[in-house]
Amino acid sequence: MKRIGIVGSSGFTGKECLRLLAAHPEVEVATVLSARPSVSDPTAYRGALREPSCMPFDPQAVDGLDAVLLCAPHETAAQLAPTLLERVPVVVDLSAAHRLRNPAAYETHYRFVHPHPELLETAVFGLTEWAREPLSNATLVANPGCYVTSVLLPLLALRAAECIAPASDMIADCKSGVTGAGKSATAVTHFASVHEDFRAYGVGTHRHEPEIREQLGTQRLYFTAHLLPVLRGILSTIHVEPRTGLGADEFRAVLLERYAAEPFVHVHADDEGLPCLADVQGSNRCHIGVANHGPRVVVVSCLDNLVKGAAGQAVQNLNVVFGLPETFGLDAGASPLAGWR
Amino acid sequence: MKRIGIVGSSGFTGKECLRLLAAHPEVEVATVLSARPSVSDPTAYRGALREPSCMPFDPQAVDGLDAVLLCAPHETAAQLAPTLLERVPVVVDLSAAHRLRNPAAYETHYRFVHPHPELLETAVFGLTEWAREPLSNATLVANPGCYVTSVLLPLLALRAAECIAPASDMIADCKSGVTGAGKSATAVTHFASVHEDFRAYGVGTHRHEPEIREQLGTQRLYFTAHLLPVLRGILSTIHVEPRTGLGADEFRAVLLERYAAEPFVHVHADDEGLPCLADVQGSNRCHIGVANHGPRVVVVSCLDNLVKGAAGQAVQNLNVVFGLPETFGLDAGASPLAGWR
Amino acid sequence: MKRIGIVGSSGFTGKECLRLLAAHPEVEVATVLSARPSVSDPTAYRGALREPSCMPFDPQAVDGLDAVLLCAPHETAAQLAPTLLERVPVVVDLSAAHRLRNPAAYETHYRFVHPHPELLETAVFGLTEWAREPLSNATLVANPGCYVTSVLLPLLALRAAECIAPASDMIADCKSGVTGAGKSATAVTHFASVHEDFRAYGVGTHRHEPEIREQLGTQRLYFTAHLLPVLRGILSTIHVEPRTGLGADEFRAVLLERYAAEPFVHVHADDEGLPCLADVQGSNRCHIGVANHGPRVVVVSCLDNLVKGAAGQAVQNLNVVFGLPETFGLDAGASPLAGWR
Amino acid sequence: MKRIGIVGSSGFTGKECLRLLAAHPEVEVATVLSARPSVSDPTAYRGALREPSCMPFDPQAVDGLDAVLLCAPHETAAQLAPTLLERVPVVVDLSAAHRLRNPAAYETHYRFVHPHPELLETAVFGLTEWAREPLSNATLVANPGCYVTSVLLPLLALRAAECIAPASDMIADCKSGVTGAGKSATAVTHFASVHEDFRAYGVGTHRHEPEIREQLGTQRLYFTAHLLPVLRGILSTIHVEPRTGLGADEFRAVLLERYAAEPFVHVHADDEGLPCLADVQGSNRCHIGVANHGPRVVVVSCLDNLVKGAAGQAVQNLNVVFGLPETFGLDAGASPLAGWR
Repeated sequence: MKRIGIVGSSGFTGKECLRLLAAHPEVEVATVLSARPSVSDPTAYRGALREPSCMPFDPQAVDGLDAVLLCAPHETAAQLAPTLLERVPVVVDLSAAHRLRNPAAYETHYRFVHPHPELLETAVFGLTEWAREPLSNATLVANPGCYVTSVLLPLLALRAAECIAPASDMIADCKSGVTGAGKSATAVTHFASVHEDFRAYGVGTHRHEPEIREQLGTQRLYFTAHLLPVLRGILSTIHVEPRTGLGADEFRAVLLERYAAEPFVHVHADDEGLPCLADVQGSNRCHIGVANHGPRVVVVSCLDNLVKGAAGQAVQNLNVVFGLPETFGLDAGASPLAGWR
Repeated sequence: MKRIGIVGSSGFTGKECLRLLAAHPEVEVATVLSARPSVSDPTAYRGALREPSCMPFDPQAVDGLDAVLLCAPHETAAQLAPTLLERVPVVVDLSAAHRLRNPAAYETHYRFVHPHPELLETAVFGLTEWAREPLSNATLVANPGCYVTSVLLPLLALRAAECIAPASDMIADCKSGVTGAGKSATAVTHFASVHEDFRAYGVGTHRHEPEIREQLGTQRLYFTAHLLPVLRGILSTIHVEPRTGLGADEFRAVLLERYAAEPFVHVHADDEGLPCLADVQGSNRCHIGVANHGPRVVVVSCLDNLVKGAAGQAVQNLNVVFGLPETFGLDAGASPLAGWR
Repeated sequence: MKRIGIVGSSGFTGKECLRLLAAHPEVEVATVLSARPSVSDPTAYRGALREPSCMPFDPQAVDGLDAVLLCAPHETAAQLAPTLLERVPVVVDLSAAHRLRNPAAYETHYRFVHPHPELLETAVFGLTEWAREPLSNATLVANPGCYVTSVLLPLLALRAAECIAPASDMIADCKSGVTGAGKSATAVTHFASVHEDFRAYGVGTHRHEPEIREQLGTQRLYFTAHLLPVLRGILSTIHVEPRTGLGADEFRAVLLERYAAEPFVHVHADDEGLPCLADVQGSNRCHIGVANHGPRVVVVSCLDNLVKGAAGQAVQNLNVVFGLPETFGLDAGASPLAGWR
Repeated sequence: MKRIGIVGSSGFTGKECLRLLAAHPEVEVATVLSARPSVSDPTAYRGALREPSCMPFDPQAVDGLDAVLLCAPHETAAQLAPTLLERVPVVVDLSAAHRLRNPAAYETHYRFVHPHPELLETAVFGLTEWAREPLSNATLVANPGCYVTSVLLPLLALRAAECIAPASDMIADCKSGVTGAGKSATAVTHFASVHEDFRAYGVGTHRHEPEIREQLGTQRLYFTAHLLPVLRGILSTIHVEPRTGLGADEFRAVLLERYAAEPFVHVHADDEGLPCLADVQGSNRCHIGVANHGPRVVVVSCLDNLVKGAAGQAVQNLNVVFGLPETFGLDAGASPLAGWR
């Protein structure tokens, strides 16, 4: 039994780690360190969640643990990482603090000077399906962003197979549920602002764009974010020009082959239609579908922003690092949110 | 490994049985018989649900099974039950076809002449926490209604302990999510009718009122139903006069004692506040809280209408009949819908 | 043309006053005084609302106005009222600061010592349909609470006609949309707390209970509040015992007669069914329906909490005070939220 | 006072015409012809809508009217149009039956052989802001599609000013509320299918794509539709490459100039941010905003699919044909759905 700690449990990702690990057969949450309790309202998760009591952060409290899931805000995570790495063999950072290679990018996009730029070189970008080898030896895992994961899973495979025309801009028009906006109560997250509304945000300035571009190795990816009036889920509609002679059939064949053995990536067959949020909410799966649009191709990619987009992928990465089966803690079956049609 | 069949899998309760049993360690769904496929849209539950292929109803197809979950409409269920009982040792009927003792009540409340009134005497009313002994020998289990379960769990205990003033009317003002209204697409279930709306329905005529009254043994229970713009969940607000000298503290003590050992009934302590839908959605639990209201007492009872209110309680009853631990298939941990506060 | 001021325009009621008065043919909003701008996000109401610029509060700014709508928090409203009354002929207070006669009730229910208890005797409780005579001479109008209005409109008429059994408790089980909880961004109003959830709150302690009881002249009214995942609307389900020999037909006849000439109270005929939120959202109307429930009667009352429950009734009261037709500014026709079935 | 008829009032567009015209000072709905009543549930719009009684379709019933709003299904509208045109001077067709010039397109996209292709040449495509001259003499107005209007208003202006690079594909990633899917109760419009879900549909095959392309005069417009869990509103995110040297500032200047005098098109200034659904719900306005996205530009266009996207634009066209001020019946002020932030 591996014993791990969670640092920062008052936000949605910390809570989701607790939810998933409660069902993990080989990992135990031994320590929860958080400025505020992980469950602010004692009624939340009550009766369903075996929650260890929560203490304020103290470095010594992680001594002897097998790993830490770091769910703190970006800048706090950047500050805490070296301390934690001195005391535990593995840190999986769910913030963005170690996702970008270039320290200057943190000043530009996150408005802080990175306190430990040397860690940016050693951190493993934890898009599990593309990083198993480095993950197996990782000490610091940079867990990818939620939008980022939904866009990279199809595009990395399609670009590796040279499906996309080299001169094509890739337009990723992405929509996320409100838990992606965090647990802080603000004018933006007020029910009266979100319900029966829909909006684009961060156009041209969203922090996930440089993260996606760095991983794809191109600036031709254009990412736009929108806020959906739902709790969970990201649906990314990606518009591309295929290489001459290719279309949805070839795209699908490439994706099906690349992800055939993956437990958490499901490529829709031609007769399955395109995926939707209800296919993935509550699960660690990413569903991908493709369709012709005249000479262009539309790729639709869906995942749950709190699971495959955050806590679930963190658990999946932890399983790889620990040498456990990747599905441990992540195979709970159909969610009560799964499709109703 | 017990092998069971599901008859009628195209509705919400049939699908929910499939969802829950996919995680059951000792029960296998061997046969699904349904006029329509259990999953009308092939994308629904896709990748998450191990669904056996579905065949039209054929009595011989259940031969050799250990039990059948009967998820057909009320009148169909009344017609099929004897045939099924000749071929399998146990039938759990999720419809209302065997919940009432008096055959005439079916003409009054369900508008059909019951074809097999003799079964009404032998059927065991399957409110699990109150029926374990008869369930252990049952051949036909009448699974209780969703609203009914939410009202009976607190009131049976409170009446057994004589907490409620004998002359008190009991006002059960109940609210349910849309899955309780069934999967048929109608003007009532259209998104544009439900979203941003709320309404009472069936006032004075709802079929669950006679069911509750029969189990409570009194006509002084007045049940009102309302339709909430949510997918899952029932919250019942029950207004009663306590016996002189009693109040919320005594009510809570009685409920805590009665349900102390129950895995699926959670009585809120004084400092836990009253329960809400997010406490129970996706789980088989019923949460109960009480509060003083001047000289009166308000009891709030919450459950997921598709789980403890239908498929979950059916699985729980099946576990009792089979002599299995009651939590098998029902202990999946916190749901992705669990509380966010 | 009457020129009025609005004090406190950053909350939902202040904004709703602006929305309604923009269409008023005889009233002009000349001055808006508010610590924060009435529209925090410049995109809100943009293009639709003729909003005067907003200034910090300054008593001199109201000199010469014909009236002030006071939309400040309760305690602030209590402090400002005398100052305003020295400078303008009429103040309509949308807070609770002048609704209760007994100054001590403010310490108990609102946790502040009322600074000007002498005003509580002169304030006119502005439930328009029951207060036209005192309103015509009023200088200070206490605009009723939203829940309060929905409960009083049916019960005042039914009690005046002695329809309800003298010994009957009256159980008002009420449900409100989120705008009733105010514009402050808190854990309670976060989209993730409200969406797909439902809860009771303030059971036995809600501030609207003493207000209703004082107006009804009885302590036998028991009010319970619930939070609906909708923006606008209150539906109150009121459970009573009728006087011997009476039932829904007699209740309906009494209500139809009492409100026959009222433009903003619609009593449902027998074949109209019970009202729902979509009947009233966006309008100043209160819809009332009744149904037998065995020997008891259920009364359902619906209104928009921001219109007839707040800003609309304030405008209606202003019209009465000014001697204008009551429907001015309130007859915009069917709302885009009106029923879809 | 102009007297008009509505043919087909049981769908959302017919009902919305009734809602808007109830407030029109110069147009009276004299006749409603519909196979089913315009308000299937007698409670809907009750008390708010002055609805003329509804009769089955009879050509003679329109004799003497000044115009007909044709709200029938596409093929029915194509069949009825000549008959109506013989009897009334103006028909505004809200279906797609006269929007495309090429009769063959109806077989391809609408799966019926157009019965009166000669009318396709005379019909005026009623995007009001671009068709006032032909509208002033029109006898048959083809009211544009909802998505179509949201995409054409910005793109016609930007293309006329040669803002967009000639070689640029234009990616219109569009999202609509459920009323755009019609009033039929289907598996798609069931609350349980829509709530807490989001999906793309009709990718590469949607009927609005040929309509947009014909009006823009190019095949390089790629339109994708998505279904939002809201009642009303379309938000279109349009991704384009600008002509060299241009960007959001130049786009905005062109749009501001083109629409400066338009009462129903609002172009957001730089400090207003991008528009959202709450800016336009319930109104006849289209809001347009632009933002740089590196070397590309993103255009966001919002409208209410039932107002500017259907019934509102039909009323606006009727006003033009009748020589009335365009805002008559459409200037009701801020909607109760307008922004809450």
